[in-house]
Amino acid sequence: MLPFENLVRIDRGLRQPAYQQIASALQKHIRQGTIAPGLLLPGTREMARVLSVHRKTIIAAYDELAAQGWLEVEPKRGFRVTPGLPEVQVNRPGDPAFGPATFSTGFYRLEPEIPPIPVPAQAGPYRLAIDDGHPDPRLAPVELLLREYRSRFRRNRHVVRPLENGAAGAARLRETLSAFLAQTRGLQAAAANIMITHGAQMAIFLAARMLLRPGDVVLVGEPGYYVANQLFEELGASVVRVPVDDTGIDTRTVADICRKEAVRALYIVPHHHHPTTVTLSPERRMKLLALAREYDFAIIEDDYDFDFHYSSAPYLPLAASGGQDRVIYIGSFGKALTTTIRIGFMVAAADLIVQAAACRRLVELRGDTQMEEALAVLIENGTMARHLKKVNKIYRERRDLLCRLLEEQLGHVIRFSKPDGGMAVWTRFEPAFPLAAISDAVARKGLFMHKGTLFDSPGQSYHAIRFGFASLNEQELREAVSLIRQACDSLQMP
Amino acid sequence: MLPFENLVRIDRGLRQPAYQQIASALQKHIRQGTIAPGLLLPGTREMARVLSVHRKTIIAAYDELAAQGWLEVEPKRGFRVTPGLPEVQVNRPGDPAFGPATFSTGFYRLEPEIPPIPVPAQAGPYRLAIDDGHPDPRLAPVELLLREYRSRFRRNRHVVRPLENGAAGAARLRETLSAFLAQTRGLQAAAANIMITHGAQMAIFLAARMLLRPGDVVLVGEPGYYVANQLFEELGASVVRVPVDDTGIDTRTVADICRKEAVRALYIVPHHHHPTTVTLSPERRMKLLALAREYDFAIIEDDYDFDFHYSSAPYLPLAASGGQDRVIYIGSFGKALTTTIRIGFMVAAADLIVQAAACRRLVELRGDTQMEEALAVLIENGTMARHLKKVNKIYRERRDLLCRLLEEQLGHVIRFSKPDGGMAVWTRFEPAFPLAAISDAVARKGLFMHKGTLFDSPGQSYHAIRFGFASLNEQELREAVSLIRQACDSLQMP
Repeated sequence: MLPFENLVRIDRGLRQPAYQQIASALQKHIRQGTIAPGLLLPGTREMARVLSVHRKTIIAAYDELAAQGWLEVEPKRGFRVTPGLPEVQVNRPGDPAFGPATFSTGFYRLEPEIPPIPVPAQAGPYRLAIDDGHPDPRLAPVELLLREYRSRFRRNRHVVRPLENGAAGAARLRETLSAFLAQTRGLQAAAANIMITHGAQMAIFLAARMLLRPGDVVLVGEPGYYVANQLFEELGASVVRVPVDDTGIDTRTVADICRKEAVRALYIVPHHHHPTTVTLSPERRMKLLALAREYDFAIIEDDYDFDFHYSSAPYLPLAASGGQDRVIYIGSFGKALTTTIRIGFMVAAADLIVQAAACRRLVELRGDTQMEEALAVLIENGTMARHLKKVNKIYRERRDLLCRLLEEQLGHVIRFSKPDGGMAVWTRFEPAFPLAAISDAVARKGLFMHKGTLFDSPGQSYHAIRFGFASLNEQELREAVSLIRQACDSLQMP
Repeated sequence: MLPFENLVRIDRGLRQPAYQQIASALQKHIRQGTIAPGLLLPGTREMARVLSVHRKTIIAAYDELAAQGWLEVEPKRGFRVTPGLPEVQVNRPGDPAFGPATFSTGFYRLEPEIPPIPVPAQAGPYRLAIDDGHPDPRLAPVELLLREYRSRFRRNRHVVRPLENGAAGAARLRETLSAFLAQTRGLQAAAANIMITHGAQMAIFLAARMLLRPGDVVLVGEPGYYVANQLFEELGASVVRVPVDDTGIDTRTVADICRKEAVRALYIVPHHHHPTTVTLSPERRMKLLALAREYDFAIIEDDYDFDFHYSSAPYLPLAASGGQDRVIYIGSFGKALTTTIRIGFMVAAADLIVQAAACRRLVELRGDTQMEEALAVLIENGTMARHLKKVNKIYRERRDLLCRLLEEQLGHVIRFSKPDGGMAVWTRFEPAFPLAAISDAVARKGLFMHKGTLFDSPGQSYHAIRFGFASLNEQELREAVSLIRQACDSLQMP
């Protein structure tokens, strides 16, 4: 309920009777839109109590306003502000109440301004969506996670660890990860080297925030992860793109650039490069570490895909191969759980973690430390390991099925190569088949699909999408591919 | 399990027998610390399968390493890497594995560097904590929220709304808030004016990021919310402190400053100013809006406490009183739920929301849109309104109890005034009772309490804490106050 005692002031000193003072005060607020059209006013008894006047006074005020058309009586419910009054200053349906910002100085825009993601004409909701590599939330151990989570609230006396609600994350999860990282990827990190973040993206943000200042050079793969590139540019860094081939980022080009200019940092996705899904070879990993030492730059190693391998075993992180002094290692549990339960982590020098936590506090104070503790339990009791084993098998089958379907039904339309792991297939379309048109066509059939421009960069158009297979079951994959096939066929009609 | 197939390469061409190649490869990784001390190696069968050699070969390799002391046999479990080998390069217990950052250029530090929060000697965990104004998670409708949340995963086919996983938050919650804000505080905002954030702090960050550039002047209350001040300084803004008295920030001083220099933004907490808990008077609200227009600055209105009033009704936000063109309004559900389920919101001009969402995407992609939808359901079905009514009654009782206890037991030690609402009492200690010593003393009894320096600013020491009462029940409040009393008494002993 609105705080009417503050909206309506009755001055006993005035000649004007109280009911009129109330009526005109309410009318003023209805005009201004502070009392919204269609709003049901409090009952006369309630309003009389709130304004501490006699109920008859309220009835008189309401009747007065009803007579003037400001209120309408709703049988059995009471008085409602008449909807659609022309005099009322509120938003017409559709257009935002606030309109555009009118600070005459304007607010600062992001520079360079971030282009909106082009979306199909159709607004959705969709029956199906081709994401660029999300896990299937239907397979995630959400029930087990939430059971642990809820038990933390059921306790009569909640656990008190004020020092632990730190921006670096729940102490228990940091300890647990210390062991988990050693067992899974040979990474020796103490809890003090580990920070829990709100998804891997926040770890990338904090690493970039710590490393980059306007004008600094950061090397990225081309094609590459557009969100990271936008972030680096937004921080004022100069983003230099290095070609990515079948074994990852081209180290020879990296060396050439280092000889020419001072490089501050290198951003890589060593397992299943985003978007092309190639794996960085061990030789190149060693080469990059050597270059980082020789030319004194930092490596941001975004290894969010480490846990998902189907045709081969993963390689150890650069951070594990003696690169601890140079590398900020980033991982995520988002792919193991869901894209909405966002828990990522950063592994780095202890003093850098302290700074990153201080910086994180300014952005969002802290994460959901209770959820972080619940996740720690799932890792400790082996649930996470079992889950990863299970979904690796299922996602492998989905990858194989999708690749077979693409082969059979879209062989003449696309080019792709089967990824060793991860959750998406880098799918390039032949120019004869415009992705924008295909996207619109399948949208009308209830399938969301990107328009293929996400990964374009200055002077480079890939006409490609990352075809996420992990979140779609067999039937959904078949439907998605056949809808695309139909769209392509209809495009070829004379 | 570690990816041993990539750690151990067997070269059939070599003279050296396979078991020796395996043994030396494993030894190398144990030395480097990639295979951690104490780690249980895979069984001989499993390892033979992984490396595709005969099991006898693995047994020979393990025996060799055991003979050299690298491994030790654990009956019934297998071979374990010997802990505490001097030659192994890993962290000694206690010190972080990575040590300090050794980038010779170093990484950039936050400037000004953010001081760590001073904490008691005692490390915790604590039986009790005096927070600076948190809700009681034991009262939160977490069960109902999580029921809605879980139901979203149980569905065989998850809802597909790719366009909605936007950084601006779940569309359903934005729509629901549009109505909720009109009904509770007379704020007319369309969904396009509303962005869901990860806690109110992220809304403050985004607003500041949009408004402030290095050198810009931002006005804040003194004493004030130190995290916001640190954020503004970190963004390079020049923070100018304006005295706060019993009716809020001193508008005369604001006017004086505006006459002298260009002011870019003003940050206020209109209900229960942080830390002093005073409420900004309606007259001053109008004055601030007038000044904002006259001198062309923006107002960041952090109204996180709007929903918690005990002795009086809340005033309408500046954003509702015709200030829509000048004000960025910030609210939160963190206080209504728990401090860990962090859902806040920002209300502003539509084009500013678009920019803020683009900026948020670079920091953390998106929030937990499923949790946001679950919260929307609780607001729509009236659970939230009932919950707020319930806790307002309980928190009022706790406030009254705490104030009585402070009066009775610490009257000679502290000064405070009873807050109209919110979750904390601004409690200033007499110089004769050093807070640092009291904090350490109660910590030894299991009570966490800040050292009273959080709100100090250059040249200003308040020797005060915000005594959070909402998260402590009657018994806990009594215990906390009596522990402080005991500490004070012992300090006075000759």
